[in-house]
Amino acid sequence: MTVAVYLPADDKTQWWVDMLQALLPGWVVAPMEAMTAPEEVTYAVVWRPQTGDLARFANLRAIVSIGAGIDHVLADDKLPAGVPIIRTVGDDLTQRMREYVALHVLRHHRDMPRQLQAQAERDWHAIVVPVAPRRNVGVMGLGNLGAAAARTLADLGFATRGWSKSAKSIDGVETFAGPAQFDAFLSGCEILVNLLPLTDQTRGILNADLFCKLAKGACIINCARGGHLVEDDLLAALDAGRIKQATLDVFHVEPLPADHAFWSHAAVTVTPHVASQIDADTGGRIIAANLMMFEETGTCADLADAQRGY
Amino acid sequence: MTVAVYLPADDKTQWWVDMLQALLPGWVVAPMEAMTAPEEVTYAVVWRPQTGDLARFANLRAIVSIGAGIDHVLADDKLPAGVPIIRTVGDDLTQRMREYVALHVLRHHRDMPRQLQAQAERDWHAIVVPVAPRRNVGVMGLGNLGAAAARTLADLGFATRGWSKSAKSIDGVETFAGPAQFDAFLSGCEILVNLLPLTDQTRGILNADLFCKLAKGACIINCARGGHLVEDDLLAALDAGRIKQATLDVFHVEPLPADHAFWSHAAVTVTPHVASQIDADTGGRIIAANLMMFEETGTCADLADAQRGY
Repeated sequence: MTVAVYLPADDKTQWWVDMLQALLPGWVVAPMEAMTAPEEVTYAVVWRPQTGDLARFANLRAIVSIGAGIDHVLADDKLPAGVPIIRTVGDDLTQRMREYVALHVLRHHRDMPRQLQAQAERDWHAIVVPVAPRRNVGVMGLGNLGAAAARTLADLGFATRGWSKSAKSIDGVETFAGPAQFDAFLSGCEILVNLLPLTDQTRGILNADLFCKLAKGACIINCARGGHLVEDDLLAALDAGRIKQATLDVFHVEPLPADHAFWSHAAVTVTPHVASQIDADTGGRIIAANLMMFEETGTCADLADAQRGY
Repeated sequence: MTVAVYLPADDKTQWWVDMLQALLPGWVVAPMEAMTAPEEVTYAVVWRPQTGDLARFANLRAIVSIGAGIDHVLADDKLPAGVPIIRTVGDDLTQRMREYVALHVLRHHRDMPRQLQAQAERDWHAIVVPVAPRRNVGVMGLGNLGAAAARTLADLGFATRGWSKSAKSIDGVETFAGPAQFDAFLSGCEILVNLLPLTDQTRGILNADLFCKLAKGACIINCARGGHLVEDDLLAALDAGRIKQATLDVFHVEPLPADHAFWSHAAVTVTPHVASQIDADTGGRIIAANLMMFEETGTCADLADAQRGY
């Protein structure tokens, strides 16, 4: 078996190649651009592959996304049809996302941006906020990451609701499903966390229309994909006071361009796509195990659905 | 029964008087300074009473602290001996403290101060931190608030340890007890949360000696009492890099004086004694219920131990 590895950052590619090679004795693992015999490549392990990269491999058995989402693979309009795509999820990815969501929901809940401003002004005045059980928090997307985030928020005491394409049941979380229940999910929601997969149905879902359906002065946390957010709509909603604050981890263009309005907006917290990540050690072990399982059985637990988009 | 109410802020006193009066029909509730017949006062409900205030009431059956700590009552060196002191604790107080501790431990864990600085510099560079299960967090004090905080941190995934005067057992938390296990508790601890009661044994416990026993570059969160912290020792430890950051909710002098070094210290987050509070509605109901229970039975669940100090 021959594995081609591609990441946009060259230095990271060799690191992944070395690690996967160590974990897959007897296999051939090499950087994608070093593959002189494309017909020998049976697996591709990729993050943001370039258009047409994967179409070169006529005998590809599966594509592995280095990450939970597969949108960056599906973005290739020359992607060979019918090749299974394997997602990479793991405890670390879920754990880090739980931390990020808990941190930023709590930051908005306790109004830390205003608290830090008060400190800068040496202002002792107390900012009084409701107790978490009287704070309505919503999570859009109840896959591995969204469900874990919603459970974490419920455990912290928040009045937590979740919305997903198909009906889900999560302890302590009021769940809503499908377009028919979307408005009911949004109504009264004070802090909204987006963890949806990016698909044609969810692209641009964080827009002016949605912002108007939340509680006035709601906060938005986007830790899914930049494509979910209509950036100009958010800027307008922030300036109008309809949205109070936003925490954004993902952007249409990454790295976020130096002249982008988000960087210096007083109501926007920017983090550089770090909400969650698989550290390479853990990710390498998961990917190697998935590849061996797929090679042996023709399937594995983390298989994505290209039609569905996640 | 006659209840005298005292809070340092006049406007708040009348608010508490009105609410307790509504909850205690048939009792007499009035501001302490309006009590013309001190011998009729059977109960005093107080926050930070002035020295000698309580000694005036010869027939006092119990003193109620508007808060979980009783140090502000014991600080009165003319306090009448042997009068039972009733603490005020409730779900809201515990809930708010869980939120505060979770928020600030996560802030330090994910290095939000540096992240916000990076945003100000339009710096996309990722700050990589370990995942919570590889982060050692310690809670000093395992009473109602400390135990709830420790459980919350363990639920968030942190490697959580707790220390208290007497041995406690908490699911998912490694517990240490007494002076003999104090150094073992501190060793390797990266984020330390103080929720001890303020007593002669714990005054000044957050000092240079303790800072040296933590992991180098540890963070400190003090949400108990200002008297626990030796402020100059913290400033020196921050300047030396031994302590990386501190979040302080309580201070020797409150409000924190405008010229205090903490306000503008880059490594210190100041919050104005808001980590937890009982909102007056909830607090009023708890105090009224405790007073009725004590009047009827001579005791109640929230009785403090003046000898012990909490």
